[in-house]
Amino acid sequence: MRECDLCVIGSGPAGQRAAIQGAKLGKSVVLVERRDVIGGVAVNTGTIPSKALREAILSMVSRQSAMPQLADFRRAREHSFQELVRSADRVVDAEIDIVQRHMRSNGVAVLHGAAHFTEPNTVAVEGGYGTEQVRAERVLVATGTEPAKPEGVEFDQRTVITSDEILGLPALPHSVIVVGGGVIGTEYASMLSLLGVKVTLIEGRPRVLEFVDGEIGEALQYHLRQGGMTLRLGEKVVRIGRCEPPPGARTTDGCMAEATLESGKTVRAECLLYAIGRQGATAELRLENAGLQADNRGRLRVNEHFQTGVPHIYAAGDVVGFPALASTSMEQGRAAACHMFGQPVHEVSRLLPYGIYSIPEMSMIGWTEEKLTEEGVPFESGVAQYREIARGQLIGDDIGMLKLLIHQESHAILGVHAIGTGATELIHIGQCAMAFNATVEYFVNAVFNYPTLAECYKTAALNGLNKLRSV
Amino acid sequence: MRECDLCVIGSGPAGQRAAIQGAKLGKSVVLVERRDVIGGVAVNTGTIPSKALREAILSMVSRQSAMPQLADFRRAREHSFQELVRSADRVVDAEIDIVQRHMRSNGVAVLHGAAHFTEPNTVAVEGGYGTEQVRAERVLVATGTEPAKPEGVEFDQRTVITSDEILGLPALPHSVIVVGGGVIGTEYASMLSLLGVKVTLIEGRPRVLEFVDGEIGEALQYHLRQGGMTLRLGEKVVRIGRCEPPPGARTTDGCMAEATLESGKTVRAECLLYAIGRQGATAELRLENAGLQADNRGRLRVNEHFQTGVPHIYAAGDVVGFPALASTSMEQGRAAACHMFGQPVHEVSRLLPYGIYSIPEMSMIGWTEEKLTEEGVPFESGVAQYREIARGQLIGDDIGMLKLLIHQESHAILGVHAIGTGATELIHIGQCAMAFNATVEYFVNAVFNYPTLAECYKTAALNGLNKLRSV
Repeated sequence: MRECDLCVIGSGPAGQRAAIQGAKLGKSVVLVERRDVIGGVAVNTGTIPSKALREAILSMVSRQSAMPQLADFRRAREHSFQELVRSADRVVDAEIDIVQRHMRSNGVAVLHGAAHFTEPNTVAVEGGYGTEQVRAERVLVATGTEPAKPEGVEFDQRTVITSDEILGLPALPHSVIVVGGGVIGTEYASMLSLLGVKVTLIEGRPRVLEFVDGEIGEALQYHLRQGGMTLRLGEKVVRIGRCEPPPGARTTDGCMAEATLESGKTVRAECLLYAIGRQGATAELRLENAGLQADNRGRLRVNEHFQTGVPHIYAAGDVVGFPALASTSMEQGRAAACHMFGQPVHEVSRLLPYGIYSIPEMSMIGWTEEKLTEEGVPFESGVAQYREIARGQLIGDDIGMLKLLIHQESHAILGVHAIGTGATELIHIGQCAMAFNATVEYFVNAVFNYPTLAECYKTAALNGLNKLRSV
Repeated sequence: MRECDLCVIGSGPAGQRAAIQGAKLGKSVVLVERRDVIGGVAVNTGTIPSKALREAILSMVSRQSAMPQLADFRRAREHSFQELVRSADRVVDAEIDIVQRHMRSNGVAVLHGAAHFTEPNTVAVEGGYGTEQVRAERVLVATGTEPAKPEGVEFDQRTVITSDEILGLPALPHSVIVVGGGVIGTEYASMLSLLGVKVTLIEGRPRVLEFVDGEIGEALQYHLRQGGMTLRLGEKVVRIGRCEPPPGARTTDGCMAEATLESGKTVRAECLLYAIGRQGATAELRLENAGLQADNRGRLRVNEHFQTGVPHIYAAGDVVGFPALASTSMEQGRAAACHMFGQPVHEVSRLLPYGIYSIPEMSMIGWTEEKLTEEGVPFESGVAQYREIARGQLIGDDIGMLKLLIHQESHAILGVHAIGTGATELIHIGQCAMAFNATVEYFVNAVFNYPTLAECYKTAALNGLNKLRSV
C-alpha cells in the first residue's frame, strides 16, 4: 500500500498541473496514467498531434504554392500523409519529454496502469506487473474524455473512425465525410480539405461551431466552401455503414463509408470521421466504490472548487464538461490542487479565450454580437481586415479580420473576435484590455509595432469610433 | 496659388496620418511628395521592402530546410535574390495602392514635386509640369531622413552602398561588410547571413543595438555568430575604399570594397553596406525662408506638440529624430494634426514598443535590466523559453524567449523583452498589461489559448514569482 497526499488519475493538462501544484505545495503526489506514455489525449492523440499535423500541412501547402515547379506533387501526395504524421510525432515526443521532466523535477511519482476506486480514499492501479494500492488523502479525477461511439455504428479504424484514429490512417483518403461540425470536426475537415481531400462536413445545427460570433462563423464557412468543402448544415445522420464503391470511385481499400441523412440523401466517401461529442472516461473507475456517479455522458459534476459530491475527491479538465479546452483544464487542475490543500486561489478567470485551430484559425474572447443583442446591450463593432494593414499584405493573408465589440455608451470592449493568421495569439491583447476594463480609446492611443497584425486593434478601434460618431 | 488649411510635406507614415487626421477634422489638406509614388521611405525603400524581403527569405529558407531533396539550391541561389526582391515589390505596390486609396477617400490633394518654403506660409512645389505655390494656414514637415553619406566615401550603388540601394543590387554578393550595428545594419546583416552571404558587421560600440536589454542583445549576438556572421565590436572604420580582388576571391564585378579599421585591420568584401545614421531630409526645403534652421544632422527641433520654433509650422516623424520608427511617426503625425486644429489629443503614449526585424526578431516595451539597475529599482526577472512551451515545439523555434521584469515589492510589470518568432506581436500583450499597471499576478491567473506563444507570459510570470518567493 502506497500512501500519499494526492492521487491524480490522468496525466493530461488538468492532471499535470494539479500534480505539479500539489508538489510545489510540499505534498506527496502520485500521478496515475493508463497509457504507456504520459500527457493524456492532449499530447498523444488530440490537441498536440492535430496541431502538429496542421503546422506540417500549412508548411507543405505554402511550399507548394511558392515553388510549384520544384516537385511532382501528385506523386508527393501519396507519401506525404505519413510524412506529415511523422513530423507530428516528433513534436509529440518532445512534448512527452517535457512533461516527464516536469514530473521528475517536481518529485511527482508516476504509476502506469488502469486506475479504479476500491474505497473512497483508495485507488487500485493495475499495471503490467501487478496491481498497486494507493491510499490518498485527496484524489483528483482528471481522466478526460474519449470519443463517443454510438450504438449501431461499427468503427473499424479505417473506413469508419473517430478523431483518435485519424493519424493512424495508412494513407490520405481521397474523400472523407466528417460527421459533426464542432471544434474537432471542423479542425480536421479544414486540414483534410487543404490537403486536397474531397470533404463533406455534416452538422445538425444551422451552422458549424455554433458558439462563435455569427460574422466570424459565416466567414469561416465561406472560406471552407471556397476551399472546395461541401457543408451539409441542418442535416441529421440516421445511419452509418459501409458499401461497395460504385464503378470509377477512387478508393484504396475497395470499401466505402456511407452516411444516410434524415432528409433522404446518401453520402459516400472513402472514410467517415465521426466527431460528435466525447464522453467522460469514467467507465472503468468503479466510481460506485467512492460513492460517486457519473452522468449519462460519463462526466462528473463539480462545484466551483472542482469538488465532487464526495468532498475529498475532486475532478477537473474535460471530464467535468464544458468548455473542455486544454487551456482551461490546466487552470482547473491548478485551482483544484490549491483548494484541496487550503491554498488561496484566484477564481479561474471568467475571461476564457477560445482558440479554434481550423484553417483559417479563429479565436474569441468575451461576448458575441448575437449574445449582446439577445441581452439588449447596445454595441457597435469595429472591424479591421488584415489586407488593409501592412503586415497582412506582407504575409499575404487577405482573408483575416479582427472585430472589436464596443459598448455604445461606455466604449468598453465587450468582445474580440478574430479569424486568420495568428488569431489565437492576437486575441490575448484584447483579453488583457478586457481584464482591465479598457475602453476602445486604449487601442486608438496605443503605439503598435509596424508592421504587425496587432495593428488591427488600432484600425478596428478607429473604425468602431468612426461608426459611433456617426450614430 | 493654391490655398489650403494644411500643407503636409512628405507622404511617409507621419505625413499620411497627419493628412488623414486633418481631412477628418474637415480641413482642406495638400500632401506634397517628391517621388513619383507616395508612401515615403517606409513604403518605398525602407520598412516595407526590407520586411517583405525578410518574409521572402524566411519562407525560402524554411522551404529549403523542409524539402532539401527537391531542388538544386546552389543554382536556385543565383536567381533567388532578384526573385526575392520581386516578391517584395508586389507588397510595396499593394501598400502604395492602399495609401493612395486612403488619400483619395479622405479628399486629400496629392501634389508630386520637390517642396521648398518661399515664405513661412507658402510652399513652392516644383513638379514635372512646372511650379505650384501652396499657401497654407499650417504646415507639417514630415520629410523623413536619408542615409548619411560621410565625406571621403564614394558611393557607387554597387560596391559601396547605403540601405536605400540594397534592393537594387543585380545579384546577391558573396560577401558583405555592414558598417553600423544599429537597427538597419543589424536587420540587413541578419537577412544576408541567412541567405548564405559571408557577413562582417562592424560596430563602434561594445555591442549591437545598444538600447536593447543586455540579455536579449547577447542572445541575438550569439545567434548571429552561430549563423556564421563575424561581429567586429568596439571597432571604428577609418577608411572605406575599393580594391582589386585578391586571387581566388569570389566576386561578380572584379572589384571589392575595403574597410580599414582604427585597430589596423583591413576587411574586404564584395559589397559594403554603410548603415551609420540617417539625416533629416531638410536640405532642399529652404528652411531659412520660413525662419527655421535644422540642426547639424538636418533635423528639426519640436516641442511636445510637435511645433517648431515657428508656431504654425509643425514637424513629425523621423525628421524630428529619436525614436524614428514608423509606428511612433504615425502617432506624431496624428497628434500634430490634432494640436494644430485645436482638437484635444492624448499625449503620444510613453509606452513605446520597439520592434526590430532582425532574424531572429526582437521586441521590447518598458525598462531594460540595465536601466532599472542604474536607477536602483529592485526587480526580478521571469523568463520563458519558447522550447518549454508547446507552441514553440510546434513551430520548431528553440531559441525564442520572453522575459518579464517584475518589481520586487509591488510585482508591477516594468518591462517585457522578447526574441524569436512573433516577438513584435507578442510584446503588445505586455504593453497592454503595463498600460493598466498590471502586476505579474495577472499573467499567472489569465487563461491562454493552448498552444500559443502567448503562454510564455504565464510561464515567465510563474518563473518570476518562484524566484521572488525564494528571495
